[in-house]
Amino acid sequence: MQEEQTEDVQKLGGMEALDEPYMQIGFGNMMRKRAGWLSILFVGEMFTATATAHFQGELERTVILALLMPLIISSGGNSGSQATSLIIRAMALGEVTLKDWWRVAGRELPAGLTLGLILGLLGAARIYLWQWMHDHGVRLFGSPFGYDYGPHHGLVALTIGTSVVGVVTFGSLTGSMLPFLLRRLRLDPASASAPFVATLVDVTGLIIYFTIALALLRGTLL
Amino acid sequence: MQEEQTEDVQKLGGMEALDEPYMQIGFGNMMRKRAGWLSILFVGEMFTATATAHFQGELERTVILALLMPLIISSGGNSGSQATSLIIRAMALGEVTLKDWWRVAGRELPAGLTLGLILGLLGAARIYLWQWMHDHGVRLFGSPFGYDYGPHHGLVALTIGTSVVGVVTFGSLTGSMLPFLLRRLRLDPASASAPFVATLVDVTGLIIYFTIALALLRGTLL
Repeated sequence: MQEEQTEDVQKLGGMEALDEPYMQIGFGNMMRKRAGWLSILFVGEMFTATATAHFQGELERTVILALLMPLIISSGGNSGSQATSLIIRAMALGEVTLKDWWRVAGRELPAGLTLGLILGLLGAARIYLWQWMHDHGVRLFGSPFGYDYGPHHGLVALTIGTSVVGVVTFGSLTGSMLPFLLRRLRLDPASASAPFVATLVDVTGLIIYFTIALALLRGTLL
Repeated sequence: MQEEQTEDVQKLGGMEALDEPYMQIGFGNMMRKRAGWLSILFVGEMFTATATAHFQGELERTVILALLMPLIISSGGNSGSQATSLIIRAMALGEVTLKDWWRVAGRELPAGLTLGLILGLLGAARIYLWQWMHDHGVRLFGSPFGYDYGPHHGLVALTIGTSVVGVVTFGSLTGSMLPFLLRRLRLDPASASAPFVATLVDVTGLIIYFTIALALLRGTLL
């Protein structure tokens, strides 16, 4: 059972199970176990560049879009990582079986919306706070602090807030459904690792973000 | 023991342990357990915007830098997630104790360099491949495929390769050392979750990436 658990934790971390204690396994052996998944994830993550290239014109028009990319997509990866860990563990303990997928989806949809709303409000508040500090000439350690998002900073805040709601909801749903999908395909649900979910969500998260930005900022920043 | 393991997996996913089965816990209770860490991580991730704003001028000069941001920083998050899961599990099993930190660092430094080299080569190959497809007018489903990185695409490939080596090495070291640091501070090493490490590495990864880009691309793209 302890070995099973070790396998699960290692898979959750985004690698093949080592089969030997960390301190004893040979270097080449360990590299083989770790490099495989990392390479697959890296190739998958390359689609972020493809997705982003579609919105190259928008990125050229305002650098603000680029500044906020990591913040927004990581919120999806983090919420997806929570959801996948929860479900993988609940499956391992037998609390949740394949036929429960729609009950889980029914919990994760409102959970994702609620968590997204909390983070979205934090994100919007950050824009207003930085704008306020910029407008009032706040200084920290002698340097000017804050950021000038320009006259349309309210729309930027709305773009962040809405995007984060969308990305976190999508992340929670993806993270919770992926273990079911893997089990259905007779694969180990524990392979739905935090990095795997994060990679899936990064690509989609960028598309959600740029689409919302286009809808809300066209005519002002875009 | 099973409860301990469940706690560990949930913490690894970036949340407080639920204390109740997933299907039975109340919605409000679950939100409280999940929103706390997500909010802390979200606020931490805001530093990516601050770090990126320092390189705003460079981002305005070439959009290519923005396109590759998610790919490069996620490679650090993924390798950090592997390393932290490995060490947390090895600690839980007693295979590794506090005094072993330097032996672990001595394994993770070459491991990170090797993994970084593998991914860095993949990243550089991607640039050459996309450039080649663009230059040769490759079409996929009727649309032009590939990307024009311009006459200095060799330097772009070198920037990706070098940055990924740096970011993955940093990610593996951070991911493996954070559980030791938490244990030293008498906190639970399992709190060094994949999302926690990814957030730490995202901020630093961007700084590594932009610094290398500035050094290699000044006078051409920057």
